[in-house]
Amino acid sequence: MYRDSNLRTILKTISWRFTATATTVTLVYLFTGQIRTAIEVGLLELVAKMIIYYVHEKGWARLKFGRVEIPAYVIWITGMPYSGKTTLGNMLAESLEKDQRKIQRLDSHTVRALFPETGFSREEVNRHIKRVGHLASILEKNGIIAIASFVSPYAESREFVRGLCNNFVEVHLQSTAEYARQFDKDGFFERIDKGEIKDVPGVDRPYEHCENTEMTFDMRRNSLRQVHDAVLAYVRKSYN
Amino acid sequence: MYRDSNLRTILKTISWRFTATATTVTLVYLFTGQIRTAIEVGLLELVAKMIIYYVHEKGWARLKFGRVEIPAYVIWITGMPYSGKTTLGNMLAESLEKDQRKIQRLDSHTVRALFPETGFSREEVNRHIKRVGHLASILEKNGIIAIASFVSPYAESREFVRGLCNNFVEVHLQSTAEYARQFDKDGFFERIDKGEIKDVPGVDRPYEHCENTEMTFDMRRNSLRQVHDAVLAYVRKSYN
Repeated sequence: MYRDSNLRTILKTISWRFTATATTVTLVYLFTGQIRTAIEVGLLELVAKMIIYYVHEKGWARLKFGRVEIPAYVIWITGMPYSGKTTLGNMLAESLEKDQRKIQRLDSHTVRALFPETGFSREEVNRHIKRVGHLASILEKNGIIAIASFVSPYAESREFVRGLCNNFVEVHLQSTAEYARQFDKDGFFERIDKGEIKDVPGVDRPYEHCENTEMTFDMRRNSLRQVHDAVLAYVRKSYN
Repeated sequence: MYRDSNLRTILKTISWRFTATATTVTLVYLFTGQIRTAIEVGLLELVAKMIIYYVHEKGWARLKFGRVEIPAYVIWITGMPYSGKTTLGNMLAESLEKDQRKIQRLDSHTVRALFPETGFSREEVNRHIKRVGHLASILEKNGIIAIASFVSPYAESREFVRGLCNNFVEVHLQSTAEYARQFDKDGFFERIDKGEIKDVPGVDRPYEHCENTEMTFDMRRNSLRQVHDAVLAYVRKSYN
């Protein structure tokens, strides 16, 4: 929550008075033709009204009426490994922070302390994603924008999370194993080639697309910057 | 996040103009002695300055300077079963919501969807409390007041949670099995008597007090209303 500092109110008071007293002096001069009277009225007004304005500002700051809450939402970035989810999530978080919004990034790193046990069976993955979804919805209900980036390959758990949230934006970064491989600096695809890693969505297991997905981007045709700009424009337009 | 609605700014504009123009008319009359001139200046000022004021307000609303964030904090209510933790947590949440603060209640009910598996061994309880603490600290860092009510009998996990949070207020509701029994409408103590429930902190297992605890209330000497008032006064004074 925010409040106006006293210094903010003081500076606002001065900036208003400068504007307003200039108007008064002009008006009095135009009506009376007396420059001396105009300046005298202006000077007295300068002092009296600054005090009155400051008190008026502080009074309104205590009043709830007309304070509109800007809605929060959940951006859920999904796609196969090395499709750009984490980078996109970080780029969006950075841009939205500049809008003075509260952001919480959710990725495997963030939620490790909360939900450490993650298996790779369909059931375990779905359970993990549903828990992250619960967390995202708690954040959203409290006015925080949650930006989640998870492979989340199963339609079932993604739809479950959508059901928990008020404003849910699913962003699917569509890629192929051939294309994603170039972004792999960890030897992930080499280990797949050697048979050390199996059951990878988008590689040897299907990624389940949803009909509901707000935005799907073919990453072979879109740069992350283009995707970022599109998602940012979408949420700013939808939830402001 | 909040913004001022246009209606709020319009009403604020009118309330200010009423105050300010009355001052101007008085000043002009005092200086010129002409009631007609005073009213003419007043009328023209009325229209011109309302427009200028509205624009000035909207301009300042875009400016970040002097917007001070009011800090969030974690209220951690701990104590043996039936010491009044949940009721106190709900009372505090209700009062703080009236202050237009964002509140998230955390109790066993809230966190069930996030952390379902809860055993009763020392290790399991500590792990559960630490996870809840991670959640509380995420909320606090995003400006939300977290009010947690858990038995949390072990000093180790409570101190761990304190370390995660910026502003941590531990409230210990101290009770005895004899006293707590009167609030038990669930037959909990009967089942202890029959030997069906064991290892209950404060009954047949020690509750570990911390030296750091901000506030400890002997519930045999304090009503929940008194405790509520004391905690509320403390957090309002410490974090505003």
